[in-house]
Amino acid sequence: MRLKTHIYTMKSYLSIIVLLVFSYSCAQPDKEALKTIYKQSLTNGKAYEWLDHLSNKIGGRLSGSENAEKAVLWAKTELEKLGLDKVWIQPVMVPKWIRGEKEEAFYEVRRMTKKVNICALGGSVATNNEGIRASVIEVQDFETLEKLGKSEIKGKIVFYNRPMQADLISTFSAYGGCVNQRYAGAMEAAKYGAVGVIVRSMNLRLDDFPHTGSMSYGDLPVNKRIPSAAISTNDAEALSSALKANKDLKFFFKQSCEQLEDVQSHNVIGEITGSEFPNEYMIVGGHLDSWDLGDGSHDDGAGVVQSMDVLRLIKESGIKPKRSIRVVLFMNEENGLRGGREYARAAEEKNEKHVFALESDAGGFTPRGFSFDCSDANFNQVLGWKPLFKPYLIHYFEKGGSGADIGPLKKDSNVLVGLRPDSQRYFDYHHASSDTFDAVNKRELELGAATMTSLVYLFDKYGTNPLPENKSIKN
Amino acid sequence: MRLKTHIYTMKSYLSIIVLLVFSYSCAQPDKEALKTIYKQSLTNGKAYEWLDHLSNKIGGRLSGSENAEKAVLWAKTELEKLGLDKVWIQPVMVPKWIRGEKEEAFYEVRRMTKKVNICALGGSVATNNEGIRASVIEVQDFETLEKLGKSEIKGKIVFYNRPMQADLISTFSAYGGCVNQRYAGAMEAAKYGAVGVIVRSMNLRLDDFPHTGSMSYGDLPVNKRIPSAAISTNDAEALSSALKANKDLKFFFKQSCEQLEDVQSHNVIGEITGSEFPNEYMIVGGHLDSWDLGDGSHDDGAGVVQSMDVLRLIKESGIKPKRSIRVVLFMNEENGLRGGREYARAAEEKNEKHVFALESDAGGFTPRGFSFDCSDANFNQVLGWKPLFKPYLIHYFEKGGSGADIGPLKKDSNVLVGLRPDSQRYFDYHHASSDTFDAVNKRELELGAATMTSLVYLFDKYGTNPLPENKSIKN
Repeated sequence: MRLKTHIYTMKSYLSIIVLLVFSYSCAQPDKEALKTIYKQSLTNGKAYEWLDHLSNKIGGRLSGSENAEKAVLWAKTELEKLGLDKVWIQPVMVPKWIRGEKEEAFYEVRRMTKKVNICALGGSVATNNEGIRASVIEVQDFETLEKLGKSEIKGKIVFYNRPMQADLISTFSAYGGCVNQRYAGAMEAAKYGAVGVIVRSMNLRLDDFPHTGSMSYGDLPVNKRIPSAAISTNDAEALSSALKANKDLKFFFKQSCEQLEDVQSHNVIGEITGSEFPNEYMIVGGHLDSWDLGDGSHDDGAGVVQSMDVLRLIKESGIKPKRSIRVVLFMNEENGLRGGREYARAAEEKNEKHVFALESDAGGFTPRGFSFDCSDANFNQVLGWKPLFKPYLIHYFEKGGSGADIGPLKKDSNVLVGLRPDSQRYFDYHHASSDTFDAVNKRELELGAATMTSLVYLFDKYGTNPLPENKSIKN
Repeated sequence: MRLKTHIYTMKSYLSIIVLLVFSYSCAQPDKEALKTIYKQSLTNGKAYEWLDHLSNKIGGRLSGSENAEKAVLWAKTELEKLGLDKVWIQPVMVPKWIRGEKEEAFYEVRRMTKKVNICALGGSVATNNEGIRASVIEVQDFETLEKLGKSEIKGKIVFYNRPMQADLISTFSAYGGCVNQRYAGAMEAAKYGAVGVIVRSMNLRLDDFPHTGSMSYGDLPVNKRIPSAAISTNDAEALSSALKANKDLKFFFKQSCEQLEDVQSHNVIGEITGSEFPNEYMIVGGHLDSWDLGDGSHDDGAGVVQSMDVLRLIKESGIKPKRSIRVVLFMNEENGLRGGREYARAAEEKNEKHVFALESDAGGFTPRGFSFDCSDANFNQVLGWKPLFKPYLIHYFEKGGSGADIGPLKKDSNVLVGLRPDSQRYFDYHHASSDTFDAVNKRELELGAATMTSLVYLFDKYGTNPLPENKSIKN
């Protein structure tokens, strides 16, 4: 205990020095800077007005669609109005999947038909023109499929009905525990001769919205691919009950979606060039594409307009960044990640050193903090900034994942970050027609933009190369 | 520096001991207890189902109304179903104010009339049958009224238009900075001969909902009382613009509200009697009354059903409390606080020792923590529990106010606590017809109930008499 206490004392001594130095040299101006940023965002923010346009004037913008190209042009124009040092669009080829006609589905029980709410999963093939009518086998996981085998599955529709786990506090963890049903459900069921797949929507709430999302056939030959669709949680519950009463009920569904040839689209990029280290890049971003069912307000209109507002807030708050700060609006996060990959590829090719990347892609809800993919030294530096964020109720600083679009930029030395808003309501809207502008609160959106701007300000000011701990101790 | 470091070392040493003792003796069972409580609430909660009934089957329940009495009976019946040790209702006389006919209002500009959304403030007198038509004088505060004086105000309608301050992170602080316009606006304006008062709604959002709330005439004689109403934020902005263009525009409003004689109503109380200290009482509560415009889901249906569920969750989680735990559903928080006062008066009369009281009356949003009105010793004890709450993202533990209904129970020795949910959206709904069931998210509501139950569990287990700090140091 004595030895430990001695070390503890040394560390305490050091902590006090660090604290004093921080308090007197940096904390006050930083405190004021954050105050200015939050005030600007809450009283003079543009994010909400931008989101209104993106959601209500453009709407859902699936990669390859006309709306996606409208969004590209609009974002470029809006960034140009901000007086940034550079604004440009970066070409990228994207997949084009179209939903076609509105899907139809029902099941037959005691000579009655009950309509159900479904939507084709992104990437799925169509049914034939007459639709599919077959018996249903309900499962919770792939292990059960294997146990049941071809004899039980062949010729049937597989109904994946494992619900998101309600007692997980992070709804993203609950999503992670279920989404393999959606992504790989068809690929797995096809192995046993299933003719179609219906997946319970990734939604913690019981309601009538089917939630789409990407799925993959892996390397399944084209002639083995079976159609897959999501069913609303209410209808999943009802179907499950009906199956208990009548194992042999017939389910019908029809969809006419189609995967077309890749088309050209764009990432949209704006830059404030750094005053001291113009060749060190820090980026903030979200993805400009969305699913087609709602208007993509939370996923990821919110991240787009917040990221745009970060650069505007930096300028409005009178901050002159040392490093080059870019907003990057990625195309095709939802069904391909082509934009994120292309941005990273081009950055590598041009030898652009990306020291920091922050993505907002978890909805426009009250921000709670950040998740960091970085070294311990950088993470500890962030922990030292926690008191600066306390007045804004930003408390969550944990190591973990960042964002899908910025993932391809990962290096040992850089800092990747994901904004972490409150996650409780996210999956009420995710990939469904309920993801609309009215589900976003102006203040919550603006608090997110201010929180992102504050982190960018601090990393720009203090850099991403904090003194390693042992070096501090030697001083 | 050396002396300070020495003290720091002593404190560190002590902290380590406290931490170790806590970690090995208490933390594990407490960690498990909280896990059980949260799981129960999120997978087997009753709060949402109860709120559905209270909001959709009963609805708005202003004190003295038929709905308020329906709510009393319903709550008593539901508590009786839980198998508590005692359930009863406590009589209390409450004011009865009725809104009467739907209010009408418009202003005239360039021979056009523009309809505006208003609602009478709770406690206001009516206009006469023909309504009031008068010029308008816009002010931001009472100081301006004084400067303008009778000469400028007499015969006019005073329009209070000071908005809630958007850059305050706590929306309750923004409310606190504005609500004197609503509460005392008529009383102040009447002094200068105003004939009526229109108050900008206490709402941070620009929308069309007028928000009611209590107002008072103080000791103004009956014949000096002037009618007062709230106007929606959109209409407040429009009226203000119209006044800039035309100072002499005429505003008309008509309302037929009335203050009737007091009537009898009730608090509803349920109890689990303590196993070790049955004469020490810990209470959790919310208020059963609401305003009449919406169905009072956030204010305070949420607090009511969460408080009811605290007692159910204690039983379901297998916790046998040492102290007597009561749920108290207070009547008449909104326009009189009679229920809270009567509960405290009766407790005093019966010499019931209330060691702890927790109120939920800030909406059914994601819980962030608690505000404590208690001694430093009790507050420090709570800070020691912070790690137990971290997995549930409960991070806000501050000294401050608790709740209006439990305020009358305050003693030097007891602990009063207010649940603090995320406050960003609260004033979108507060006292308006937008405060309805669909604005409440099931998980957010349930997380609140679990968070309240967890604090009750800890205070019951460890008591409200922690060792004073100097005693610990002597050991």
